[in-house]
Amino acid sequence: MKPKLNDVAKLAGVSPTTVSRVINNHGYLSEQTKEKVFAAMRELHYQPNNMARSLQGKNTQLIGVIFSDISNPFFGELVSRIEKILFAKNYKVILCNSADDPQKERDYLQMLMANQVDGIIAGAHNLGIEEYQQYGLPIISFDRYLSDNIPIVSSDNYHGGWLAAQTLRQAGAENIAIFTGKSYAGSPTNGRREGYEAYLASEQLTPHVHELPFELSPALKMMEIKTIMSQQNYDGIFCSDDLTALLTINVAHQLSIRVPEDLRVVGYDGTALMRNYHPELTTIEQPLTDISTLLVSLLLQRIADADCQLESKYTLPVKLSKGITA
Amino acid sequence: MKPKLNDVAKLAGVSPTTVSRVINNHGYLSEQTKEKVFAAMRELHYQPNNMARSLQGKNTQLIGVIFSDISNPFFGELVSRIEKILFAKNYKVILCNSADDPQKERDYLQMLMANQVDGIIAGAHNLGIEEYQQYGLPIISFDRYLSDNIPIVSSDNYHGGWLAAQTLRQAGAENIAIFTGKSYAGSPTNGRREGYEAYLASEQLTPHVHELPFELSPALKMMEIKTIMSQQNYDGIFCSDDLTALLTINVAHQLSIRVPEDLRVVGYDGTALMRNYHPELTTIEQPLTDISTLLVSLLLQRIADADCQLESKYTLPVKLSKGITA
Repeated sequence: MKPKLNDVAKLAGVSPTTVSRVINNHGYLSEQTKEKVFAAMRELHYQPNNMARSLQGKNTQLIGVIFSDISNPFFGELVSRIEKILFAKNYKVILCNSADDPQKERDYLQMLMANQVDGIIAGAHNLGIEEYQQYGLPIISFDRYLSDNIPIVSSDNYHGGWLAAQTLRQAGAENIAIFTGKSYAGSPTNGRREGYEAYLASEQLTPHVHELPFELSPALKMMEIKTIMSQQNYDGIFCSDDLTALLTINVAHQLSIRVPEDLRVVGYDGTALMRNYHPELTTIEQPLTDISTLLVSLLLQRIADADCQLESKYTLPVKLSKGITA
Repeated sequence: MKPKLNDVAKLAGVSPTTVSRVINNHGYLSEQTKEKVFAAMRELHYQPNNMARSLQGKNTQLIGVIFSDISNPFFGELVSRIEKILFAKNYKVILCNSADDPQKERDYLQMLMANQVDGIIAGAHNLGIEEYQQYGLPIISFDRYLSDNIPIVSSDNYHGGWLAAQTLRQAGAENIAIFTGKSYAGSPTNGRREGYEAYLASEQLTPHVHELPFELSPALKMMEIKTIMSQQNYDGIFCSDDLTALLTINVAHQLSIRVPEDLRVVGYDGTALMRNYHPELTTIEQPLTDISTLLVSLLLQRIADADCQLESKYTLPVKLSKGITA
């Protein structure tokens, strides 16, 4: 039997009116009270009735968009496109930079639970997957596994990794490394690494994997890259994002390593910013327009019909954007 | 006498209930009806009663943040910081990329009028100033004159322009040009240009002003820069934003003009992205953290007290970020 508002009230130890006020974000409510109510909603898998809400004209036309930080140009471009597509469909974007702040991500999920947003597009991953599994509401994920019932939209990370390694090889590299993020379950860079490793195996070459945590400041990352490059003699490096590729090229200049003669470099992402201002960089381009369009389209399908069948994973093709670094 | 909801209804030719539904964004409303009601609200300078709204617990805790496009790294960083500061104060950001779309900007202003957001931070300027003058609600502007009652927060554009020209001169340049945006009333780049011109006058040097419209694609902008640099023999160029400075340096490389030996270049903005990934660029750094903090603090003052006295202009100091291009 579906849980009712009264069940939530009982479990939370508050009145049904309080539960209703939390759901409608109405009047003063202490953080403690809200937490209790949300915890009870999660435990019971309680969902405010969407249909009733629609009939009351209570769709908020607001979509929560959670990415680690839009000051990263990749996320800046992605969120900018998502916002434009949603606006044309009469939705507005509530922006969340969730970097390093699980509580922030949780806060947005709670807005969703309370019907204060109609859905969420998430590309962040501070929270454990268990938390996401408690929500049966409209969420679409970019490039990260969040829970079984949340569809993922990704670029073809595996093929991208393969293509990057192949490009380096065909440009003459033999001793090919990858600079990637720390691997964890559900991370998008895992696929890039697997594709890289598979290509190297097919060529009987040895992989060299260096994990540079995504959260490192550029200065610290550059220091690590310098250490690695001083000790190793790579003639090809695949960087799993373009900004790391820029740092790698900067370090090469500092060490008087010529690019591409002594060292070939391939990046990943291929934002408009990068293609416009660093056309020299060879990179694997993610189809940002298609990604944004699909994220929005899937989310709106799920908002219109909570039970609509969606695939668990949508993989969009990448392409090589050829510069002169490989 | 203050206009009442009934006056708005009469002028718009709709029922008071319809006006109330528009204000509360409740139920289905045609765009045409909304337009009529908003036009009447503007004409009468009608303001939904903030106090009453607060007592009903109807503050939305939502702030509209309107910038031309967060895929520009300067706006990406600024909006990212604004969002973080607002979140810590229990507000959420509704994001609007208004580029080239006056209707979008108007739509957000109407949300503000209808009490669907508590205030707006605006750094865009598609709309005529007359439109902004019709609103007496909490708005703070970044770097653009919008109307007499809307405070502006800016970096010290005039001093920045002066400092840029002085830096070029002291690096040995004599024939110093400026690449700037098209000038229009209220544009932030006017001050940068004025400072540049004033410094050149103080040194008895002739200014050379080239206006490159902000909306030009990077490829077209680069073409124009190439034409200018092929015809002129500048040994110093002040670019009123860093991305244009990158293009200028790229063109110099294409034309075998050595930077900084033959040509010195100074940019403007100094985002973290630029300082991290282009430390070679000499630029004028805007204090992004102070700007974001002040924008939020002024807005929250005005939300708390609509009649609080604020300055019409707040100018924050810039500083030179020294690279090797000048």
